[in-house]
Amino acid sequence: MKLSKDLVLQAKATFGTPTYLYDEAVLRSSFNELRDALPECVDIFYALKVNPNLSLVKLIRSYGGNAEVCSLAELEIALKAGVAPQDIILLGPYKKPEEHRRALEVGVFAIVVESESELRKLSVLAGELGCDAPVAIRINPNFSAAGSPWKMGGRPTHFGIEEDTAVANFGHYLALPNIRIKGIHVYNGTKILDAQSVYDNAEYILELYRSLNRRYNLDLRMVDVGGGLGIKYYENEKELDTARLKQLLAPLFNAFHHEFPRTRIILESGRFVAGKCGSLLVTVDNIKENHGKTFAVTDGGTNCHGAAAGSGQVLKRNFRIVKATGDNGGPLREYHISGPLCSPDDLLGRDVQLEALHEGDLLAVTASGAYGPTASPTLFHSHGHPAEVVVSHNRLFLARARQSAVEIRDSHADVALDELLGTVSKVMPMPIAQAATQRQLADILRVVLNLPEHVAISADSHLRDELGLDSLTSMELLVSLEDDIEGFFVNPDTITPGHFKTVASLAGYIDAHRQVPTGRRAVEAIEVHHEGV
Amino acid sequence: MKLSKDLVLQAKATFGTPTYLYDEAVLRSSFNELRDALPECVDIFYALKVNPNLSLVKLIRSYGGNAEVCSLAELEIALKAGVAPQDIILLGPYKKPEEHRRALEVGVFAIVVESESELRKLSVLAGELGCDAPVAIRINPNFSAAGSPWKMGGRPTHFGIEEDTAVANFGHYLALPNIRIKGIHVYNGTKILDAQSVYDNAEYILELYRSLNRRYNLDLRMVDVGGGLGIKYYENEKELDTARLKQLLAPLFNAFHHEFPRTRIILESGRFVAGKCGSLLVTVDNIKENHGKTFAVTDGGTNCHGAAAGSGQVLKRNFRIVKATGDNGGPLREYHISGPLCSPDDLLGRDVQLEALHEGDLLAVTASGAYGPTASPTLFHSHGHPAEVVVSHNRLFLARARQSAVEIRDSHADVALDELLGTVSKVMPMPIAQAATQRQLADILRVVLNLPEHVAISADSHLRDELGLDSLTSMELLVSLEDDIEGFFVNPDTITPGHFKTVASLAGYIDAHRQVPTGRRAVEAIEVHHEGV
Repeated sequence: MKLSKDLVLQAKATFGTPTYLYDEAVLRSSFNELRDALPECVDIFYALKVNPNLSLVKLIRSYGGNAEVCSLAELEIALKAGVAPQDIILLGPYKKPEEHRRALEVGVFAIVVESESELRKLSVLAGELGCDAPVAIRINPNFSAAGSPWKMGGRPTHFGIEEDTAVANFGHYLALPNIRIKGIHVYNGTKILDAQSVYDNAEYILELYRSLNRRYNLDLRMVDVGGGLGIKYYENEKELDTARLKQLLAPLFNAFHHEFPRTRIILESGRFVAGKCGSLLVTVDNIKENHGKTFAVTDGGTNCHGAAAGSGQVLKRNFRIVKATGDNGGPLREYHISGPLCSPDDLLGRDVQLEALHEGDLLAVTASGAYGPTASPTLFHSHGHPAEVVVSHNRLFLARARQSAVEIRDSHADVALDELLGTVSKVMPMPIAQAATQRQLADILRVVLNLPEHVAISADSHLRDELGLDSLTSMELLVSLEDDIEGFFVNPDTITPGHFKTVASLAGYIDAHRQVPTGRRAVEAIEVHHEGV
Repeated sequence: MKLSKDLVLQAKATFGTPTYLYDEAVLRSSFNELRDALPECVDIFYALKVNPNLSLVKLIRSYGGNAEVCSLAELEIALKAGVAPQDIILLGPYKKPEEHRRALEVGVFAIVVESESELRKLSVLAGELGCDAPVAIRINPNFSAAGSPWKMGGRPTHFGIEEDTAVANFGHYLALPNIRIKGIHVYNGTKILDAQSVYDNAEYILELYRSLNRRYNLDLRMVDVGGGLGIKYYENEKELDTARLKQLLAPLFNAFHHEFPRTRIILESGRFVAGKCGSLLVTVDNIKENHGKTFAVTDGGTNCHGAAAGSGQVLKRNFRIVKATGDNGGPLREYHISGPLCSPDDLLGRDVQLEALHEGDLLAVTASGAYGPTASPTLFHSHGHPAEVVVSHNRLFLARARQSAVEIRDSHADVALDELLGTVSKVMPMPIAQAATQRQLADILRVVLNLPEHVAISADSHLRDELGLDSLTSMELLVSLEDDIEGFFVNPDTITPGHFKTVASLAGYIDAHRQVPTGRRAVEAIEVHHEGV
């Protein structure tokens, strides 16, 4: 991506760092490059696992992309982005029951089934829902894509059903009730930079489709040839030759389409589409010499960009890192670019050649649109998720807000220490009036919020986060409190948002502000004394 | 940790899986084992980076632990857990200005400064705040702990100041305005299982303290000897011998304490304290043969527990994985235990020997209390953060709720596609009355929420998450709307929480429910027509 110095400075000033910048123009041109390399009969399904940012998914849909999702959240993101259910497929070696259910309810194009066990479960569920489940069988083939550093086919993985098993049992799959077999899915590799490999892989899968079709006399409607198209990350790599890809793939797919005109041909792509459009922007905080190396310590490391830091790689190679505000052609120096973590391998780059750096300089880790924040331990050291910003026509759009410290703190439940220590009975009993009010408040909350029996309400229950109190129901609640609790009236001068935090805090406010004869309060208290709260 | 089959089944039934279980009894016994191995003059500082779960921090504080934090969120968690500021130290090679500021404001015991640049910044900030910053200088020593797989001292890292530099410049540090040098900090290694290494390391650091003290005639009050005490993960490892540790450390620290009775001796520990108490509970979803291996596919993998999956390790060794519901002593079989990700190395364990597994079986990855969810890419494939549960006295407490799909979806900003494409001017203009109402609503929101000028309010601004509307202010808002917007009255039968989502949604409700003469509305419209929203 090419960004002007002004835009980078504006991004820093507006959103701070570390921040991912996604360039809409580069995203579009990457998508179109792939679109141009494929004949019209092939549909591109964007793999959200690569980058599920809602704004990117919206954009890719607007360019003509479909969606391949691997979880309920990815499915919800695709739907919110406006992708039609018939342009969504759901896959993954493990799927939650609610993922199957939701996919059937909204009517996705196909659920890619990865085991015979999953197929049986889906048959039962679809029967319960009174529908037919649209299914593609994922096959782990007796073949592996050359040119892929990760061999995902032809070797033991947790993906799909072995080719021999799938071919032998396909008749059984077809016979299962409430299952409609639409086609097959094969995914063989990743980071493929060799056009011939893409061709060999697709040819094998189309031939597998043909032979299944012949053997079972089928009327299938879908073949997913996987994807795995790579981009250049390192000096020693060459970009995929899309002109050559086009030469190879056009006759292959067109011939298949001529033979099976009603079969949807799906090619999945994530990294190729989204990888090049993104950069991680970090700020140099300090520079130090340490035992013979010069370190530029930045505000973003492994926690923001595990892939650049080489997580999971034996051989750590550098992503290309540039001075985001441009350089002046000065002499180069060598830096270790580190992040904020207390781990010695928290390095975004090793021995990186850059013009002399100074505190406050902005660095961009390029080719970072794929497997960025979602593939990183963003909560490590509780630093939280970085901001994500889309750059389009020289304007910046916040596409995901930075996670705040308070948000992270409050993602933890606030269980009372006495409970955790099992010493509740040993501590001072709660003031009696409080317990009575809390119980009364709990009853009112149950009615106002329409809470089912199995939802427990305790003194520590958080009104908003646990019980679902919102702006509207909080008004209803106050009206009910005034109606039902004798002597209590809301005083806008004394009530604060803090009183609405938990059952205990609101009950405390009520007790402090109600007018009740002392004798009456004592009677209420006796009723609940032995129950606790 | 030893959990009864009943508790494990209850945890699964109540909270689902994947779920981290933390056993309070084991946490306590680990802490006490370390406490017993150290003389009284040594304070234990729990490193929150290892596991910042609020409930664990509360418990550790109740056992007598202090807190070592590395970020603003960790600081806020420690404070919320009730740790006294004087029992907190802040460290890390990069610190945000707001971290420095907050640490000074609450009055932490020391800020561990990792570079001369940081020291200068802190001096300026403390001057601005009119206070003295309590500082410990982190030194990267000319020495490295034997027996540590990660050498963090005596080699180039982004930690601390080189020993020779620090010793030479210590006088300058002391002379900086608004800086109070309290002591030094050295952290040399991690996963140390050899008591003699712990001793050698501490001895070196205490001697460094002595020599600095002599050279500069100081009156320091703190020495932090780091930590890095390990636990047994793999078959080939032996637990740290704490009896031997006690034999070695007691005379060393007691002699130092006798010599420097006013110096706080700090030992940091995270993994040793929290590591053994935790297990990751996962459910076997399906079992399949694939190219000669048997896979047990579970609902939690690298995304929940990167450390167990061997992220970042060249040699992948298995954490101990057990059948959480107990086994029956049947013959063993060999399994690859996989997770839900579409990555062939998403394996919690390789060639694990277990009694025959069946769908629905529960597995526990043990020794997982340290570097669990926060060190994992929990958002990979948008699966989200697993649940965390504390087990105490046979009761279960939800310590962190599972992240939901809707929560993950809604963490993305919902930017309009037209904006992202830069085609706003080409689309249908917004209905004129809407634009006027939105502007009026924005003005009212600014007053009610007391929003400063620099906070931008747009049609898409989220009332709660962006503008901070809460239960109380939403009532004020409705009153103001009725007061200020002609012809508008809230109708409890028609307004829903959905109307309170964004400026646009609330303005839409207002327009649909107000009674305004048509002529009047048109006049308002003309005023804003050329401004847009």
